[in-house]
Amino acid sequence: MAKEYQNIFPTGNKVPPAYFTGNAYLTMLLQNDKNNEFSIGNVTFEPGARTNWHTHPKGQVLIVIEGEGFYQEKGKPAQRIKKGDVINIPDGVEHWHGATATTGMVHLAITNVLNEQGVVWLQPVSEEE
Amino acid sequence: MAKEYQNIFPTGNKVPPAYFTGNAYLTMLLQNDKNNEFSIGNVTFEPGARTNWHTHPKGQVLIVIEGEGFYQEKGKPAQRIKKGDVINIPDGVEHWHGATATTGMVHLAITNVLNEQGVVWLQPVSEEE
Repeated sequence: MAKEYQNIFPTGNKVPPAYFTGNAYLTMLLQNDKNNEFSIGNVTFEPGARTNWHTHPKGQVLIVIEGEGFYQEKGKPAQRIKKGDVINIPDGVEHWHGATATTGMVHLAITNVLNEQGVVWLQPVSEEE
Repeated sequence: MAKEYQNIFPTGNKVPPAYFTGNAYLTMLLQNDKNNEFSIGNVTFEPGARTNWHTHPKGQVLIVIEGEGFYQEKGKPAQRIKKGDVINIPDGVEHWHGATATTGMVHLAITNVLNEQGVVWLQPVSEEE
């Protein structure tokens, strides 16, 4: 994996398997504070890795910095996303994101924090979905 | 320049010369909206390019994604910054950022917006500074 990617940031630690399928890694780049009402993380998805379905109480912005993957909102078709894409995820919309089966993906996640909460985790995404 | 850099984002348009020294370019990636009380821009500095002195009413986060440069707060020594660094700029602190004389730099700028304002531009940075 390391060789395929432009590693701008350290890969970080494996994310909690309760909320993800496959191998994904997180490096936190910024915690929310007085001025910045959001956190910033760098998320690396190995091929086949993806988040569970989840929502963000105040939305999230993804900035894809390497590779290709998918973003899907519940009830809509999955859309292909790739390096250079910016995805503005609305608040409260159930969705998932992750790599394709054969290609990894690295994205920054800028997660708005509302009442100390940035994400609500839901069920895993099935292979059919 | 193009060949030296990992161009994740388009280089964009030249920034207003009234606020910068040298050649710098901006691509806006996100405008502030209801959930995101910040804008995101990708700024490319050619070697020798830098901002004027300026302040941010609600702070700014820089994420260096390529090259090397400087960040300096008024009254403090300039500090070297490089690919992978995250700089959390406080509100109201006069500062500048830019490339070194010989090395370009690309950074994301996440600019918090307060009362519709993200930045207050001041005087150019002298060569001595």
